[in-house]
Amino acid sequence: MNSYLKMNKSELEKEFESVKSEYETHKAKGLKLDMSRGKPCKDNVMLSKNMLDVTDGANGFLNEDGVDCLNYGGIEGIKEMRALFAVILGMPASQVIIGGNSSLNLMFDAVSQGMTHGFGDKPWYETKNRKFLCPVPGYDRHFAVTEYFGFELIPIEMNENGPDMDKVERLVKDESVKGIWCVPKYSNPEGVTYSDEVVKRFATLKPAAKDFKIFWDNAYCVHDLYGDGDKLLNLYEECIKSGNEDLPIIFASTSKITFPGAGVSAMAASEKVLNMLKCRIKYQTVGPDKLNMLLHARFLHNKKEVTEHMKKHAELIRPKFESVISSFESELTPAGIAHWTNPKGGYFISLYVLDGCAKRTCELCKEAGVVLTGAGATYPYGKDEKDSNLRIAPTYPSLEELKKATEVLCTAVKYAALEKLLNN
Amino acid sequence: MNSYLKMNKSELEKEFESVKSEYETHKAKGLKLDMSRGKPCKDNVMLSKNMLDVTDGANGFLNEDGVDCLNYGGIEGIKEMRALFAVILGMPASQVIIGGNSSLNLMFDAVSQGMTHGFGDKPWYETKNRKFLCPVPGYDRHFAVTEYFGFELIPIEMNENGPDMDKVERLVKDESVKGIWCVPKYSNPEGVTYSDEVVKRFATLKPAAKDFKIFWDNAYCVHDLYGDGDKLLNLYEECIKSGNEDLPIIFASTSKITFPGAGVSAMAASEKVLNMLKCRIKYQTVGPDKLNMLLHARFLHNKKEVTEHMKKHAELIRPKFESVISSFESELTPAGIAHWTNPKGGYFISLYVLDGCAKRTCELCKEAGVVLTGAGATYPYGKDEKDSNLRIAPTYPSLEELKKATEVLCTAVKYAALEKLLNN
Repeated sequence: MNSYLKMNKSELEKEFESVKSEYETHKAKGLKLDMSRGKPCKDNVMLSKNMLDVTDGANGFLNEDGVDCLNYGGIEGIKEMRALFAVILGMPASQVIIGGNSSLNLMFDAVSQGMTHGFGDKPWYETKNRKFLCPVPGYDRHFAVTEYFGFELIPIEMNENGPDMDKVERLVKDESVKGIWCVPKYSNPEGVTYSDEVVKRFATLKPAAKDFKIFWDNAYCVHDLYGDGDKLLNLYEECIKSGNEDLPIIFASTSKITFPGAGVSAMAASEKVLNMLKCRIKYQTVGPDKLNMLLHARFLHNKKEVTEHMKKHAELIRPKFESVISSFESELTPAGIAHWTNPKGGYFISLYVLDGCAKRTCELCKEAGVVLTGAGATYPYGKDEKDSNLRIAPTYPSLEELKKATEVLCTAVKYAALEKLLNN
Repeated sequence: MNSYLKMNKSELEKEFESVKSEYETHKAKGLKLDMSRGKPCKDNVMLSKNMLDVTDGANGFLNEDGVDCLNYGGIEGIKEMRALFAVILGMPASQVIIGGNSSLNLMFDAVSQGMTHGFGDKPWYETKNRKFLCPVPGYDRHFAVTEYFGFELIPIEMNENGPDMDKVERLVKDESVKGIWCVPKYSNPEGVTYSDEVVKRFATLKPAAKDFKIFWDNAYCVHDLYGDGDKLLNLYEECIKSGNEDLPIIFASTSKITFPGAGVSAMAASEKVLNMLKCRIKYQTVGPDKLNMLLHARFLHNKKEVTEHMKKHAELIRPKFESVISSFESELTPAGIAHWTNPKGGYFISLYVLDGCAKRTCELCKEAGVVLTGAGATYPYGKDEKDSNLRIAPTYPSLEELKKATEVLCTAVKYAALEKLLNN
């Protein structure tokens, strides 16, 4: 096979006939495969099953502080989990609080707090033309939260070092820009870990808005696929150096360490910012689910054991990433119609097809029974102006299903490219 | 002992000497007892311990719909728990959603939603002089939520049938009045169950605000101390009859059925209102903790078993209520300086001391090592104009501790009353 871009019309037509027939064969199989969300598969989830061997043993349901984890209270979460996330995130334990099963919920609530109470300045609600920066391609659920709260979403292009910091530094001079969404390690969906320089430039940002916040969603902080993985510079420490410690709110969770639907979340910030956040939480709840925290503490113990546990996850996930990349290399490289990321961790591969072909590729996949994340979903308002990016989530299907799904995907990428080239 | 109110000065002085000495004796014991919050005691909590015998048996961690309760998704909660709360609350299951461990959190979020997005009218944030009705004495955490969001809190006096509906009907003619807090069964702290007439008047309210909401916190819906307990008319059914079905949002939880800190919560409303609420939730989280729901479903099964389970709770709690009431009768009735409620369920006894004596009684208790809910806490802004009401929470201490604490309390009530009478 030669590059499609070098073929003449008759060669393209011939190739299209062959790809069409390939596609019809896939379609005839009546597949029903889902690659749409970054969801751990059952084997990943079952790695933590022992956590549920609940015994009240010597300490009953008391944690190491003697707090009864079945009863009310304790809005900051239990000591053990605060200590564990402190090590994982490189924060003082007193500046970490543990939440319920969803870090997205913590982020949503933090934006909600900005809206009604602000972060030391007037409530964001009062800024009618409020804006939020959105590195693209990025996480659709992040963008959706700020869209829900009426922010104008401004895309910031990603490169191999992270977001385009020139643009970020320029835009934060506008007082109506209130924050930025970041997934700094193995970013969703690019798999990029922000470079030291990018982290330092975040730490030295001088936003016009006094209440500007970096939403630092370190969702994949321990989610390496190979050995020790990428190293992310500690944003908070850098912020202290530049007197900017109130800038970031840092998030993480065990969703992809233990149970996606029944893990625990964590949030960290400067003392001042954390006090603002706690001031909301104390009205919101009598306390989070400490039993689940206790189970997590007794199962995960410490950073070293978390690392060992994550190696088992990697063993299940790595072959899936490698299978997709390998199919892309054999099926798409020769045709010269796509490129993709090859991340060393996280949950996604970012696939770029010919401009104008992402939606059509997605549609063709769907017709053949393979559900992808909707084209455009990785951009604010679902609008990928180039219509080129597709987020591939290889973790949920079994390896065998994944192989079938990737075959369909590769055929669809070629199909859409040929349609475009033949219609030009 | 005669009524203090009929004693002359010298009799009062003599009695005060005797009560002071009684008080000093209590104080010398160095007690450390807490009656401040409506917290189940360990024995209550342990009634649900079997819930944690987690097995993945035949159905693994799948619910009856085949949903993997360990993985992401399902913002409405699992079918079994929706069905159970539907029966408990008398609502269609499709109009019930299950949340995390805190129904207060659901209420807080609903008010927050009103603030930024409204309920079909403009966001509450836009109503600068927004007001909320607060039956008094009532639940401090309810009042605090609306205080946090900048509502003016308007007290509505409670009587033996529920809130003063004449006043409610008059005040809702003001468009800036956006809602009311209600604990309709065994109200906190009065223990009053709203009469059928009160419920019907709620169902036929004609508020000027199109987005007025009744926050119907049915926290003690199955928390009877005696037999079948009080009967509460179904507000939602009454609302349908009067074409007012969008008026209430109904809340409940298992906090005082299973684990206070690790239960599940429920929220119900008309289809229209529930859709508004779900529209927020879908941005807020990928889904609630379904594992905990599954454990609850497998432990509680159905309404009948919940009722049996609640009888065991009542057996633990009833003697505590009776012990407090019996001490009040022997210690306080003769002195004629206090009256109190005698509820058939719920978590509280509401004690009224002589006007101007609640704070002092509380202070005297504290000095002798007995912590009560702060005087005034049951009123908006913590201001009980008569300084007369004290919320007694008898459930958390052991029966023996409770007896000691009640002795101290009775002495303190007499002490404060005598001080007042002697200074008049």
